[in-house]
Amino acid sequence: MSIEDPNTYSVGSFFLTLAIIFIAGKKIGSLFIRFKQPEVLGELIAGVLLGALGLIPLYGAMGYDVFHLLAEVGVAILLFEIGLETDLNELLNVGPSSLIVAVIGVVLPFLLGFYCVFLLADLNFLSFTSESRLFLVALTIGATLTATSVGITARVLSELNKLKTIEARVILSAAVIDDVIGLIILAVISGVIATTASEGSSSFEIFDIGIITVKAVGFLFLAIVIGNLFTSRLFLFVHNLKARGSLLLGALAYTFVFAYLGHLAGLAPIIGAFAAGLLLAKTHQKTLIEERLKPVADVFIPIFFIMVGSAVDLSVFNPFIKENIAVILLALVLFVIAVIGKLASGLGAFSLKANKLVIGIGMIPRGEVGLIFASMGLVSGVLQKGEYSALLVMVMLTTFVAPPLLYRFFRD
Amino acid sequence: MSIEDPNTYSVGSFFLTLAIIFIAGKKIGSLFIRFKQPEVLGELIAGVLLGALGLIPLYGAMGYDVFHLLAEVGVAILLFEIGLETDLNELLNVGPSSLIVAVIGVVLPFLLGFYCVFLLADLNFLSFTSESRLFLVALTIGATLTATSVGITARVLSELNKLKTIEARVILSAAVIDDVIGLIILAVISGVIATTASEGSSSFEIFDIGIITVKAVGFLFLAIVIGNLFTSRLFLFVHNLKARGSLLLGALAYTFVFAYLGHLAGLAPIIGAFAAGLLLAKTHQKTLIEERLKPVADVFIPIFFIMVGSAVDLSVFNPFIKENIAVILLALVLFVIAVIGKLASGLGAFSLKANKLVIGIGMIPRGEVGLIFASMGLVSGVLQKGEYSALLVMVMLTTFVAPPLLYRFFRD
Repeated sequence: MSIEDPNTYSVGSFFLTLAIIFIAGKKIGSLFIRFKQPEVLGELIAGVLLGALGLIPLYGAMGYDVFHLLAEVGVAILLFEIGLETDLNELLNVGPSSLIVAVIGVVLPFLLGFYCVFLLADLNFLSFTSESRLFLVALTIGATLTATSVGITARVLSELNKLKTIEARVILSAAVIDDVIGLIILAVISGVIATTASEGSSSFEIFDIGIITVKAVGFLFLAIVIGNLFTSRLFLFVHNLKARGSLLLGALAYTFVFAYLGHLAGLAPIIGAFAAGLLLAKTHQKTLIEERLKPVADVFIPIFFIMVGSAVDLSVFNPFIKENIAVILLALVLFVIAVIGKLASGLGAFSLKANKLVIGIGMIPRGEVGLIFASMGLVSGVLQKGEYSALLVMVMLTTFVAPPLLYRFFRD
Repeated sequence: MSIEDPNTYSVGSFFLTLAIIFIAGKKIGSLFIRFKQPEVLGELIAGVLLGALGLIPLYGAMGYDVFHLLAEVGVAILLFEIGLETDLNELLNVGPSSLIVAVIGVVLPFLLGFYCVFLLADLNFLSFTSESRLFLVALTIGATLTATSVGITARVLSELNKLKTIEARVILSAAVIDDVIGLIILAVISGVIATTASEGSSSFEIFDIGIITVKAVGFLFLAIVIGNLFTSRLFLFVHNLKARGSLLLGALAYTFVFAYLGHLAGLAPIIGAFAAGLLLAKTHQKTLIEERLKPVADVFIPIFFIMVGSAVDLSVFNPFIKENIAVILLALVLFVIAVIGKLASGLGAFSLKANKLVIGIGMIPRGEVGLIFASMGLVSGVLQKGEYSALLVMVMLTTFVAPPLLYRFFRD
């Protein structure tokens, strides 16, 4: 297979690019861990660097396809893992304070983000070809601001030895609900984008959002109800198959089939992958699947984050070019909104004797789910490079800002 | 990411095809294991079925690229695993009888296969556009006949409780040498095909084989000598990196860099992957790497075998079409040669008091390395569908025929 078909991406370059992705991701990721920063940020930065150096095939270029599809597998596995770790029963047992914190922390940043895009457009800082594109951008940016990534907060809380405090429990429960709300929003937004793309951008109406919401919630509901009927028996059977790696490949095939069904339903494939994770979380094989999936996840997930980072265009932040002022302003405004929205969510715990500021700070970091929103916006053509890059900067800044604030306000 | 760029292979179809590959491979693989047949045969048959049903993108079609590259990753990981399990010191300690058995078992099938292609061409059963294509086809077919796949034999010997016998020890040692000779031939043939493809098929001379052999052996030698200087220290460093999955991704990146170097040297990338395996076999992290690689290998390797199977064109075996008689005849002749060549190799153990017939039978099964030769021949355009399909039938028949013969002649 050493011969290159002129129509195929060179096998040699493919292997080299994969090697570079793995090496840069792990090297910079390890550096971030050493300085107590989240690994995923290191992978994003590695992606930004590789993209700037031209080492990752550009969107639309030959070979992009392959890495794009590998990244799709990565993000599907990521959502499957999130689903696998989500306990639906735990969601129902969460306290009312956490519920209020989660809802404020989703609704407020969304509304602020949505509103600020319209405001910046009115002030002529941003310009759009049509009202409906403005609407879609505002929707995507609002959605990106919603989901908290609690991993960083949890690690800091554990380092401070505060995991047993009321504040920690409220944050962790709120983040679980927050994740699920975020994924429902993701399901809706991916449906909105798909509908708009297929029907042409002018025909979109607010009314459609209602239909898509019903479809998205309906898909998740039906997937879980129908899946529950046969999944346990199916995986008992798969587990008994003698072929090498049957359980792992069975779980992956199950995930991919659900991703395909999500795609058929007009949603993002990852919504299906998330449903697959929720369903397998209840099987007896859950722990075994988690264990065997880990190395495969280690291979594919970094490809997603590096591709996300590589799509950032650093030149849009050059302040000496006049057009870039809008992008820099957008990044800063989004960051401020991201912080304020989640800080305010801490007030949702008004009925508890707890430090509301700390709860708000703990909810600030955005992460994987936000990056998925941004990347979906870019690939579908809703977001342009500038808006996309501003969103990524916002996500990175929120993760940088939370740990020192927690250290400062939650030490004693 | 739910939106399809018209230039990219649909994300939905991609997930569905992957799921089908995994399900069919494991289902049929498990069936084969239950009937005491090797799993890889099940995966091949699954590939043949999926190909016949049109469920795998055809060579050259949209989406083929992605699966082709995933299969390349699979076969690189396979060769890396083989390298990781090869003990170079053990090779030097092998007895003279095993060496003679291995050499006869490589040389005789190669010469018989090479000669028989010319004979069939002279008798007008096969026709070629040029002398140099005839030569390349003869070379590839001869090479495919060489490498024994000892896994099946080893399992049967263990079931018969004969692993401690002289015959078993000769077979197992001979198979190790046989593998290494096979990979050197693979390095040479891949170089020959690459040279011919780039220079045009008319300019090829026997003399070039000498140059390529020197290059191939030189590459392996240099890779091992230079790699030995820094690999242990490199992996001590990689092992200490804190990022999730560093050791696994480090080993994969190392493999892919060597695959790229093999490609640069004008050989098949997998030769580089094999060298990487040989080098990591000597590090302290070998066992850990093997363990963490297994689930990843489980995901990628079946894709290779299923792609190999899917390229078989079942219609070339329809005996009612006159042109197919040649293909069927070729398959049968190759099978007879494959059996005779290895049976005769048993005579190499003339100085031992051992059952030479049993040794010969034990060497009959062909497997992974043969399939790699055939697939390389097809992708590079040397082999046509008919010749390729005949080779695959030969490989399958040799694995079916060995176990019952061993049961028959080695029971008491």
